[in-house]
Order: sequence, then structure tokens, then C-alpha cells
Amino acid sequence: MTITITAFERSPDGGQGLARDTRVRWALEEAGLPYEVRLVSFQAMKEAAHLALHPFGQIPTYEEGDLVLFETGAIVLHIAEHHPSLLPADANARARAVTWMFAALNTVEPPILELVTARLFEGDRPWTAERLPLVADRLRARLNQLAVRLGDGDWLDGGFSAGDLLMVSVLLRLRPSGLLNEFPGLAAYVARGEARPAYQRAFAAQLAINTAP
Amino acid sequence: MTITITAFERSPDGGQGLARDTRVRWALEEAGLPYEVRLVSFQAMKEAAHLALHPFGQIPTYEEGDLVLFETGAIVLHIAEHHPSLLPADANARARAVTWMFAALNTVEPPILELVTARLFEGDRPWTAERLPLVADRLRARLNQLAVRLGDGDWLDGGFSAGDLLMVSVLLRLRPSGLLNEFPGLAAYVARGEARPAYQRAFAAQLAINTAP
Repeated sequence: MTITITAFERSPDGGQGLARDTRVRWALEEAGLPYEVRLVSFQAMKEAAHLALHPFGQIPTYEEGDLVLFETGAIVLHIAEHHPSLLPADANARARAVTWMFAALNTVEPPILELVTARLFEGDRPWTAERLPLVADRLRARLNQLAVRLGDGDWLDGGFSAGDLLMVSVLLRLRPSGLLNEFPGLAAYVARGEARPAYQRAFAAQLAINTAP
Repeated sequence: MTITITAFERSPDGGQGLARDTRVRWALEEAGLPYEVRLVSFQAMKEAAHLALHPFGQIPTYEEGDLVLFETGAIVLHIAEHHPSLLPADANARARAVTWMFAALNTVEPPILELVTARLFEGDRPWTAERLPLVADRLRARLNQLAVRLGDGDWLDGGFSAGDLLMVSVLLRLRPSGLLNEFPGLAAYVARGEARPAYQRAFAAQLAINTAP
């Protein structure tokens, strides 16, 4: 069955790979699955046809026959459950890898989003200069815990998994802020993720769209 | 195998059921699984023994034989995968229910957390009075999308699932703010969740701990 995902017609990041379709592309590349991409404009994302696929009017969505999914974590998990390259075979190791997927999205990404939101939506507000250091410090506390757990391991729990795929993707959102470089262990972890051929292919595919004339 | 979870020795909410152990208790009650609870103090949560179970120093954790899990979404999914009361049998319906689990935690909870954080950690800051309406409006936009999708359905996608369990749990965090009542459809949805006998048992269990002399 053909897999079709949606992506921004023009990503707000201009092709830095931070839009969430990159996470799904990466998972599909790790799994060796071909896929098609339907590009949507900001206007089309808020219209009924797209909202029927994605109630929150975002990208990516995932279509495979009758199945429609719309949440990046769920899409990556769906792909991972059907392809051994993204989740270990052992049941306990698999549950732990899924734990890292949720940790990436529900524990590490929210304070990163808070920083992104403060800059993007409140950048011109009078309080932002004084408030940003508070937001950054809350985030540093979380990143420090993650760095301690990672230690000198290559990946979060044994071999590379969908948990690492999402954690690396989430941490990449920090790069524009410079904060990632305060944690050399995490920066090296992200670099290991980026060096994977599957990530390289995913990144190149979204860049091609965002730099097309 | 005995299931053991951790919970606050004294929850910051004094027993309103908003601590995350309630989500896991609810899932265990829906599945009809007995469990034990180990209470941890705020100090113990930051010590090595607990950090070995939970790298971010939070509750709940989940222990079952050799398996240790620490992220609420992953724990609920682990329980749901082994008990038909929380996920539909049909593969596509199951993937959609998992989508709602991720949507609850990664799309709906972050703007709720932002509101909670603004009140809890920045309540005494000079900008908070002016900033709170912006935060609330971002949240309202998200809640409106959720209310539209729910429509007049009882649950998000067919019968009650782990997706509803997490979505109701996330929305419950809004109750102290009064914001939930601006969306009568969502308020009724949350009330349906709370009315489930399994939720009632979970709530009562955490309340008993938090009101013990």
C-alpha cells in the first residue's frame, strides 16, 4: 500500500529540517519504506479537507490505505511496530524504547517548545528579555538530567531506536538557540543521529522541497 | 507478577487527582490489574535510587518483574497493549487510539502546562498579569480544535480508549483555571471520564493517601 505523508509547501525554517515531517521521513528511511509527499500551504492546513485528516491543522499526516494518522509520535510508533530497525525484538527493551519516545515528546520537548514560543510569539513583548533566562534555566535543568542518563552511551538504551529518533529530533530544535552546545554529550548524541544515512536522506528530501525555485 | 508504581508521598495538589500517578492508576483499574504503590518524598525523588528508575526525578514509575518504565504515556500504553479494555482489537482503530494518546500528551498538554507554569513558577513576576491572557488564548485555540473534532461524540474515536483516558486526564489539569467551562462539550467529555468506575477507584485511592493523617 502506498504511504502518503503531508509536509509544508514552504517550511517556516526554510529547510533546516525542524518541521515534523522530517521525523516521519527519517523513520520511513530507517524502515526502508518508500513514500509519497503531498505539500500543503498554510492556508490549506486550516481548511476542511486537511482538518478532516488532522484536527489540529498541522503537518505531518500519514495515509496508508484506509488508515489516517496525524500525530508524529503515533506515526513513528506505527512505522516502528512493523519494522525491526526501529524497535528491539525483546518485549522489555521494546517497552523501554517506547518510553523514550514518550519522554522525548512529553518531557523534553515541552520546555524546548516554551523557549521557541517565547522567541517566536513573544519576541517583541516587553517582558521577554527578562523572562527568557528563566525559561532557559528550566530547560537546562531538564537537559542536564537527560545528559546524566545518556552518560557516555551512544544511544539512550542499547542500540538506536525510535526513542533516539524522536529524542534527537526534539533536541535539534535547540540548535538555533545555541543551548545544545552547553551539553557536549547531548550535542555529540545529536550529531550521531544526524550522521545516520537514513537521517541524511530525510533531511535532503525536505531541503530539496524548501529550496526548490 | 506484582506491579508496583510510585506516587507522591504528598501530592502538590492535595489530592485533586492531578498528579500523574492517577493516570496510571486509572489505566490499571480499567484493566482490572491489582497494583502496589510506593510513596516517595520530594527529597527522595531527587536521590540516586529513584533517579535510577526515573531519570527526570518524577513520579510515577512502573515496575513489573525486570521491567522498569518511567513515562506515563508509555506506562499506559504498556498496560493497554496487554488488556483489551483500553485499545480496540482492529489494527487501524488501535493505531488511531494511540494517535489520541500522543495528541493528548504532545499537542494538548504542552499549552496547558504553559498556563500552569506561568501561574506556578512565574506567578509573582511583573509580566505575568499581562502575559497570562496571551497564554490562555493560545490554549483556547487548541481546545477549540479539539472540541470541534469531538463534536457530539461520547469519546474521541468510537468507544472509550487509552486515548480518552489520557485526554481526559490532561484536560482535568485545566479545571482549577476555569477554562474548561468555556468549552461545554469538553467539560461534558471530562465528566464522562470522571464518571467511569475505574476513574472513581483511581481517584479515591490517591485521595486516601493525600488526606491520610
